[in-house]
Amino acid sequence: MKEYYLQKAEANTPPLYYETVKNPKTVRIVADETDFLGYSAIPDDRDVSVTQKGDSFVLDFGRHCVGHLSFSVKDNGRYIDAPVRLKLKFGEVPYEIARDHATYHGRLSSSWLMEDVINIDRIGRIEMPRRYSFRYLEVTVVSTPRPTCLFDFEVVCETSADVGHLKPLPEGTDPELVAIDRVAATTLRDCMQSAYEDGPKRDRRLWSGDLRLQALTDQVLFENNMLARRCLYLFAACRRDGKYLPGCLYQYPEVTFDNGMEISDYSMLYCASIADYFDHTGDLETVRDLFPVVKNEIGVALDLLDENGILTHPEGGWLGFIDWAPGLQTVTGVHGAFLYGLERVIPLARALGETATVQGWERILSDARKAAKTYLYDEKKQAFVSRYDNFQFSVHSQVWMILGGVIDAEAGVRALKQSLESADSVKPVTPYMHHYLVEAMLKLGMKTEALAHIKQYWGAMVKYGADTFWEVFVDGDPEVSPYGDPAMHSFCHAWSCSPAYFIRKYFV
Amino acid sequence: MKEYYLQKAEANTPPLYYETVKNPKTVRIVADETDFLGYSAIPDDRDVSVTQKGDSFVLDFGRHCVGHLSFSVKDNGRYIDAPVRLKLKFGEVPYEIARDHATYHGRLSSSWLMEDVINIDRIGRIEMPRRYSFRYLEVTVVSTPRPTCLFDFEVVCETSADVGHLKPLPEGTDPELVAIDRVAATTLRDCMQSAYEDGPKRDRRLWSGDLRLQALTDQVLFENNMLARRCLYLFAACRRDGKYLPGCLYQYPEVTFDNGMEISDYSMLYCASIADYFDHTGDLETVRDLFPVVKNEIGVALDLLDENGILTHPEGGWLGFIDWAPGLQTVTGVHGAFLYGLERVIPLARALGETATVQGWERILSDARKAAKTYLYDEKKQAFVSRYDNFQFSVHSQVWMILGGVIDAEAGVRALKQSLESADSVKPVTPYMHHYLVEAMLKLGMKTEALAHIKQYWGAMVKYGADTFWEVFVDGDPEVSPYGDPAMHSFCHAWSCSPAYFIRKYFV
Repeated sequence: MKEYYLQKAEANTPPLYYETVKNPKTVRIVADETDFLGYSAIPDDRDVSVTQKGDSFVLDFGRHCVGHLSFSVKDNGRYIDAPVRLKLKFGEVPYEIARDHATYHGRLSSSWLMEDVINIDRIGRIEMPRRYSFRYLEVTVVSTPRPTCLFDFEVVCETSADVGHLKPLPEGTDPELVAIDRVAATTLRDCMQSAYEDGPKRDRRLWSGDLRLQALTDQVLFENNMLARRCLYLFAACRRDGKYLPGCLYQYPEVTFDNGMEISDYSMLYCASIADYFDHTGDLETVRDLFPVVKNEIGVALDLLDENGILTHPEGGWLGFIDWAPGLQTVTGVHGAFLYGLERVIPLARALGETATVQGWERILSDARKAAKTYLYDEKKQAFVSRYDNFQFSVHSQVWMILGGVIDAEAGVRALKQSLESADSVKPVTPYMHHYLVEAMLKLGMKTEALAHIKQYWGAMVKYGADTFWEVFVDGDPEVSPYGDPAMHSFCHAWSCSPAYFIRKYFV
Repeated sequence: MKEYYLQKAEANTPPLYYETVKNPKTVRIVADETDFLGYSAIPDDRDVSVTQKGDSFVLDFGRHCVGHLSFSVKDNGRYIDAPVRLKLKFGEVPYEIARDHATYHGRLSSSWLMEDVINIDRIGRIEMPRRYSFRYLEVTVVSTPRPTCLFDFEVVCETSADVGHLKPLPEGTDPELVAIDRVAATTLRDCMQSAYEDGPKRDRRLWSGDLRLQALTDQVLFENNMLARRCLYLFAACRRDGKYLPGCLYQYPEVTFDNGMEISDYSMLYCASIADYFDHTGDLETVRDLFPVVKNEIGVALDLLDENGILTHPEGGWLGFIDWAPGLQTVTGVHGAFLYGLERVIPLARALGETATVQGWERILSDARKAAKTYLYDEKKQAFVSRYDNFQFSVHSQVWMILGGVIDAEAGVRALKQSLESADSVKPVTPYMHHYLVEAMLKLGMKTEALAHIKQYWGAMVKYGADTFWEVFVDGDPEVSPYGDPAMHSFCHAWSCSPAYFIRKYFV
C-alpha cells in the first residue's frame, strides 16, 4: 500500500501560486516596551542607495513573505574589484532582527536562525537559492572594496493557497474579528506549500495535529481539498501495522519520518481529519483508501487500554502532546483525544458499510467514556484530574474530557470554568491548545465566552502587531519557550490559524 | 574600433577543459618551523565519515585546484531535521587554513579570504556555485541537529590550458629544473581561464604586465595562441586616444577598467607582448589590427619625455610598477621599459611596411638611450641610479637599463653584480621582477648565473613544497607583503610562471 499512497500523494501535489513583493521600506528596529517581544520597526528615511563596508540597514517588505529573495548589486561608478560579502538576516518579527544570534541558548539547532553570509563575485542580479520566511531583512555589508549599490530587493512569495478563493467577511462584521480573520488567513496561506507545513521558518514539516487544524480552517478559507488529500495520503504512506503513525513526516528528498515519534493524540486527530475531509467533500473514495489506516490507529489505541479501560503509553513513543505547557500531565487529555477521534470515525465506518466495526467501536466508545468518568474524574473537586500522574489539575484535562463526551454540558461548564479560574491549574500555552479550549466552549454552548476568548487571546497578538499568528503565546510572558529560547519560535505557525475557522463557522 | 576589438576578443574566447579531482585525504595542519609560512599538512587517519556539531576536518585534494566544489550530505540513519550549517575555508597553502581570518589586517578587502558559510536545507548533492582556488579545504560543522555524513567531495577543475599539449622535458634534464618547470606549468595552467588571470584566488583580472609573462611562457607550454590573441584584443578594446592603456581590466559582467590605472611600464610590456605574439605565430593580421594601439602607447610615452629625453609621470596614473619592493623609485626602470618596448615594436612597424614610423622610432630609441646614459648613469658608481628621485640604487634600475640596451655587456655585468652584491641596494621582491633579472642576465651572457638564480629563487619555493608559484617571495621573510598581510597573497600567481620559459628556451 505504501507505494499506492505515495503515488496518490504525488498526484495530489498542488500547484504553487507566486506573488512578487517589491519596494520594501527601510526601517529602524527599536526597543519598545509596549511590544510583546520588546522591539518595534519604525519608519526610517535613510538613504541606503550607496553602501560601504560596515553599513547595515533593515528592509521591511510590508507583509509576511515566504519565498525567494533577489536583489541587484552594482558599483557606484567605480568597478567593485573584490567580492562583496553580505550578511542577510531575516526576521518574521522585529525581535529576530534585534536579537544577537550569538546569544542563542535554546535546545534546537541554531541553524534554524535565518541568516546567510554570501560572497558576490560578479555584480548583477543575485537570486538567493533558499526559501526564507520573513517580513524584515537586515543587510550588513561585511566587506566591500568600494561603494556598492544594493537595490531592487524583491521576494517572489509562494503558497499553494489560492488567495482569489478567499471570501471577504460580511460587511458589518466586528472589526476585531475581521482583523483576527485576516491574520489567521495570512498565517495559513504562508504555511500552505507542498504540504501544510507547521511553520515555514521552522520546522517546515507536516505534523498530523497541525494538519488537522490547517485543513479544517482551509475549508472556510482557500478550500484546497487537493492539498488536504495529499497530506492525508502522505501520512498513510507512513503507516506501520500495529504502531501509531509518526506524529510528523518529512517530504524531502523522499517521504520519511523518525522512529519513536508516535503521539497518540496526534494519531486520533489524524483520524478526525479524515472525518473532517469527508464531511466537507463527501469523497468516499479517499475515505475507503485511508480507512485501513484509521483501523490501524484505533486498533493500536485499543491495545493500549489498561485494565481500567484508560489509554496508556505506547512503547517508545510519546504518551501524548496536548500542549507545550511545562510539566503538563497528559493521561487524561490523551484519553479524551482518543474518545474524540473514535467518535468521529464511527460515521466513516458506517458510510463504508462496515456494520460490525460500527457496533464494536460504539461499544468501546461508551465503555471508555465510562472508564474516564470513573477513573479520571475527581468527584470532590467536580473536575477531571490526571489521576494517573500526581492528580495534576489542568485546563487541558477538562477540555479533552468535554470534547471526548465524558460529561454533560452543565458539569462540563463547571469543570472548565473552575480550571480556567483556579490559580493552581495548568493553563494552555500554545494557540493549538487554545483552539481546543474554544472548541470545548462551543460544544458546551458557551458561545459568548468562546468569542471573548478568541478576541482576548488571538486578538492580543493582533494588537501586538502580529502579521501572522505565533507558535507560542502567553500574554505578558515572552520568555515562555518550549525550546529554551524565543528566538527559535516560529512566528507564522499553522496551528495558530484556526480562529478564522471559528469566526467564519460560528460568528458571522 | 572598441566594438570591433570586443568582437575579436569574444570570438577568441577559448574553450575550457575540465578535470575532476576526487578522493581527497584528510590531513592535519601543524606548525612547522621549516615551512616558509610556518605550517605544513601532515597525513591524518581520522575517520570523518560521520560528523557532529562542532566537528572540523581538513581535506587535501593532492593538487592545486581551480574550479567548482561539490559534495554529498546525508543522514546517518536518522533524518537531519534542521538545516546543516557548514563553514568551508579554502587554502592554496596550509598557512591559509591555519590562519584565523578574524586577525586579518591587510589593506585589501577581506572578502578575498576564501571562505563560505552555507546552510543546507535538504540533504543530497551540494554544488557550490563559486569558483575556488585551493588545495586544502577545512570543513567545520557549525550546526547540525544530528549525526551528519559529508562525503564524496570533489572538484571539477577548469582551465583553458590544454594539458595534453604539454611536452615533457628531455630525459636526463636536471631534476631540479624538472620540478621547477612542473610547478611553473601548474601555476600557468591554473591562471589560464577565459583570460590570463593574475591569480585565480585574487585578483582574478587581466594585467598587461602579467599577461606578457604568461603569454610568453604559454608559448613553450600549452601554446594557447587563441587566449593570447583574446587578451591582446581585450586590452585594445580599452584603448583611449592620448592615454596609456589601463594596467588591468575586468571581463565581467562586461569588459571594463578603472580610470587612473595607467602604468607606463605595463603599457610598454603590452606592446612587447604583441611582438612576442608575432614572433611566435607570424600572424600579421592581428598585428595590423592592434598596431593603432601600439602607436598610441608609444605616442603617449613620447609626449611624456622631458627636456632631457627621460620618461616622466603620466597625469593621474602611476609612474610605473616595476616591482612591489618597498620604497622603490621607478624613474630609471620605467625609462628602461620604454626603451625595451620601443625596440620590440620597430620590427612590427617594419613588417607592416610603415617605413616612416620605423625611421622615427629608431631615432627616438637611439636618443632615449643616450639620454639614459647621460642622466641616469652614475659614472662614479659605475651603475644606474634613480637620479630623478633621491639617487636610489636598485637592482631594478640596472636590470631595466640593461634590457633597454643602454650599456654594453661588460659595463652591464659590472653594474648588475654590484647592485646584487651591495648591502644598500633595493632588491627584487616579486617573481615578476626576478623574471626580468634573469632576462637581463641572459642578455648579458650570464647564463650560469641565470640558471643558478632560477634554481636558487624559484627552486626555494619548490623546496618549501609549493604546488604553484607565489605572488610574493623573499626567502626568509614571510611577512613581506604589498598588502600588509600575507593572508591576502595569491599563492598561484601567473607572473611567477616564467622559469618554464627560461628552462625550455635556454636550459634544455
